[in-house]
Formats: sequence, C-alpha cells, structure tokens
Amino acid sequence: MTKDTATFPQPDSWWPHRVSYGETDAMRIVYYGNYLHWFEQARSHFVRERGMGYAEIEARGVLLPVREAHCRYLASAAYEEEVLVRTGVGKWGRASLTFDYEVYNTSRDRQLMTRGYTQHACLSPQGKLVPVPDWLKTLCRQNPIL
Amino acid sequence: MTKDTATFPQPDSWWPHRVSYGETDAMRIVYYGNYLHWFEQARSHFVRERGMGYAEIEARGVLLPVREAHCRYLASAAYEEEVLVRTGVGKWGRASLTFDYEVYNTSRDRQLMTRGYTQHACLSPQGKLVPVPDWLKTLCRQNPIL
Amino acid sequence: MTKDTATFPQPDSWWPHRVSYGETDAMRIVYYGNYLHWFEQARSHFVRERGMGYAEIEARGVLLPVREAHCRYLASAAYEEEVLVRTGVGKWGRASLTFDYEVYNTSRDRQLMTRGYTQHACLSPQGKLVPVPDWLKTLCRQNPIL
Amino acid sequence: MTKDTATFPQPDSWWPHRVSYGETDAMRIVYYGNYLHWFEQARSHFVRERGMGYAEIEARGVLLPVREAHCRYLASAAYEEEVLVRTGVGKWGRASLTFDYEVYNTSRDRQLMTRGYTQHACLSPQGKLVPVPDWLKTLCRQNPIL
Repeated sequence: MTKDTATFPQPDSWWPHRVSYGETDAMRIVYYGNYLHWFEQARSHFVRERGMGYAEIEARGVLLPVREAHCRYLASAAYEEEVLVRTGVGKWGRASLTFDYEVYNTSRDRQLMTRGYTQHACLSPQGKLVPVPDWLKTLCRQNPIL
Repeated sequence: MTKDTATFPQPDSWWPHRVSYGETDAMRIVYYGNYLHWFEQARSHFVRERGMGYAEIEARGVLLPVREAHCRYLASAAYEEEVLVRTGVGKWGRASLTFDYEVYNTSRDRQLMTRGYTQHACLSPQGKLVPVPDWLKTLCRQNPIL
Repeated sequence: MTKDTATFPQPDSWWPHRVSYGETDAMRIVYYGNYLHWFEQARSHFVRERGMGYAEIEARGVLLPVREAHCRYLASAAYEEEVLVRTGVGKWGRASLTFDYEVYNTSRDRQLMTRGYTQHACLSPQGKLVPVPDWLKTLCRQNPIL
Repeated sequence: MTKDTATFPQPDSWWPHRVSYGETDAMRIVYYGNYLHWFEQARSHFVRERGMGYAEIEARGVLLPVREAHCRYLASAAYEEEVLVRTGVGKWGRASLTFDYEVYNTSRDRQLMTRGYTQHACLSPQGKLVPVPDWLKTLCRQNPIL
C-alpha cells in the first residue's frame, strides 16, 4: 500500500468492511449517504488502534462533534464487495481537527472509490470550544499499537 | 378504507410516506429492515394525532421500549411509490401494549404489502415494569383530534 | 420566509420532515450521516413539485449520480422536532448540476441547522457524460406547480 | 460457547460486530430496527463461511427474499460494545428456509441480547416458488470451511 502514502496524512489506519445488502440502493451500488457512516466507523477504528476508544475520549471530557463533512465519489461498490477505509488526521486546528478518508474497493483491484474528510470541533462537556488536548494529539500521532 | 376495518384494531391512524432512494436496496425495492423504522414513525404519528407526542409520554415517566417486533412481507414497493402505514393498538397487557401495523402501496392500487406488530413493555424511568397508566389507555382509545 | 431568499438560489422548494427516533444517535440528536438522506428526499421533492418524478427523469435517459456531497453542521435537532429542508439548483455545469440545501429547525424558532450541496454528473444510460438537457433546465427553473 | 449449543440449530456461524454511533439512538442503545440489518450480515456470513457468497447463490438462480422476520429484545448494547451474531438454519420447508439468530454482547459478559428468525421463500429468477435445491441444503449443513 505504498503508492498513496505520499499524499495521505501519516500515520494512517485501514478499516475493512464488506458491503451489505442494506447498504445498497436501487442503482445496485452503495447508497451515497452510507459513506459518512463508514467514515465514522473508520475514525473510531483509527483511535482504537492507538489504544483508546472514542467513548473513553468522551469520558475524559472531550467531545468531537462533526462540524463539516465532505465526500467526493469516484467509483462505487456492489453488494458483497470488500472495501478498505483509510483514515488519518489531515489538519490540526487550535480547537478542531480534521480526519481525511479514502475508500478503496479491494474486490476491484483496490480501485479508489471515494475521498472525504470530516472536521470536528473540540468541545468541553459544557459545549465550550477548548484547545485540542496534548494527549489526544500524541495519541493520533502514534503508530497503531493494537 | 372501510374494507379492512373489521379485522384491524380501532381506532386507527394512517401515516403516509414516499419511498426514498436510500430506503431501496439492490433488489430495487424497500429493504426489509426499513419497515421497523416506518412502524416507529407510524406509532409516533398514532399518538401525536391524539394530541400527545411520544417525547411527552416519556416526559410523564412512561418508557415504552420494544420487546418484540414482527413483520410479514407480502409485497414490496419501489422508489418513489407512496405507501400508507396503518396503526392501532392490538392488545393491552397489564404492563405492556402491542401496536399492530399494515402497510399499503397506494401507487399499486392500495395493495397490502406488510403486516406486523411491535410489543412494548411499560417501564418507569428506573426501568421497572409498571401498569399501563389509564391516561395512556384513554389517549389511545380516542379518535384522532388533530 | 423572505429573509434568506437573497442568498439562496431561486426558485426553491421546502420539504417538511419530523425527526424520527431511528434518526437520532447516542448524542440524542440527528446522526450526521442522515442529512444526506434528507437532501436526497428534498431534491426529489424539488423536481416532483415541478411536475416530474426523479424516476421519470431516469426513464427519459438521464442519470444524475452524486459526484460530491458537502455538509456544514451549525445546530442540530432532537427527536420529534420538525425540520424544513430547502432546495434549489445552485449551479449548472455543461454536464452537471449542483443542488444547494439549507435545513431549518421549525421547532426551535426556525433555526438554521445545516447548509450543504450535492453535485451531480449528467450521464446517459450507458454511463457517458452528456450535456444537461434543456427540458431539465426548464423544469428546474419553473416555480412549483403542485 | 458450548452452553447454548443444545437449543440452537447446528452447524452455526458467529459474526462479530462493533456497535457504531450511527446505530445507536436517543436511548443511547442500538436502535431496534438495526438488528434486521445485523441478521442480514450474519446470514451472509453463514453461507460465505461455507464457501459461497449470497451473490453467487443468486447467480445460480436462487432468490431468497425475506417473507417473515421476528425479533425478541432481551437486553441491548451501547456504542462501541462488541456483539456476536449467531446464525443457523432452524427449519427447512419444501420451498423455504428459516434462519435463526441470537445476538450476544461480548462487552457485557456475553449477555444474550436478542433472539430472532427470518423466513425466506425460495424463488426462481422469474419469481416462482421452487423447491430448495440440494446443493443449498448441502452447503448449509457443512461446517465452516473458511
């Protein structure tokens, strides 16, 4: 998987998934709205691979609601095909961070299907913007430990 | 809509819906799991038509989690077709109630598509089984007021 | 609804919806991925209000797959709240068009919740890019007739 | 996993899944309609573990649309918890088959969360009821080979 590394934020994680029937639509391909659900599962996988669940991040008092989501559709996937969702942190703001995503169809020669990102605000439990804590930056800059 | 009244619990409500693209699957018809979502919206419509939102029922201290769900698929619906979901209370238990549903495809001569039911426990906010309160029975036995 | 007209493409349509339980998540608000599903229903409503279903557009040999989707989250909505999704055509390309969206929470003083857009390629049934047909432009430039 | 074997159809398969945010609802647990989506993924996993994808079954001219679905909710699961969906063929009809399911919460001491079944008609590509082919019975009676 070397070829894309240059342009994708490092470190990254890869979340594997198989397209279910319920995720397809009458075009016989994955419904466009389901990619945001995949992105959510992939970024959750990203932090979990580094040793901390999203639920624990919240328990430590850091909420990361999505402020912006973007998706560019290049190719699709059909029922039962296997996909890989790649995730990395593309940008750090003072009180925000942005996850980047790429989706590959491994059943079709690892064709790039989708690119996207989600920008997250960093909030206290009271809903105030707060600086991204150092432990979260450190976590996301580690290589996977699991 | 007289013809089905004999066999369906009265009073009833009818929730109209148009099939979206995202609700279809690669068979080009509504995905079987989406009916439970429709049932939820239809029973919410049933109580709302009688003057009380589901959220207010919860605010009054009555939780109605689903204990059992059943669905019998007879025919389906395609993208953009219009359906009607009929709802009534089929059975009252001491600490439970059962909603019955029928789904009709009004784009296909009002064909009966689906029958189903959901059984709900009646719980206190502390999660204890409690008798169904009289005001809830009275509410559900009214004709629609909205 | 005059106040936003200046900045939103005209003509527009407004699609009403009530938030269901299944659309909320553990934050007790609408899950971020569901907005793309609402956008789909709203643009389908936009063309239907002008006299043509999306299915008929496809039957006439014009496919409009989503090439890009964007969503900016400003506020959210809780269970049973009522929302309005506003839709208009923001941009015409030679072989593409872009729908713009705004989502308002009418249960919270018509608060603006979300802005977004979806860009669609204009394809022949064989999957070739084709110029947007004039009848489609004419349709989208009409005021609602239904 | 010996303890439940006696009462559950053999052979069985176990499909692992982690609860995503999008699958939860405002009760902070898995939305009741999502179980049917899990059942679909679990029965697809069941046949795949025996060497044949669902798509190939269809390609061989056997369609298995759901005729009935049932779900009994005993306990739930929260965000990020891990579940196992167990699947086996509970009943063979002449032109139908029934999959049985159990869902366990492995994050809560393998608590039994849900029981359910889906009954499937066996149809030709022309939509006619046909006897269940022998190769399909043989497939489902094998132990997993993958």
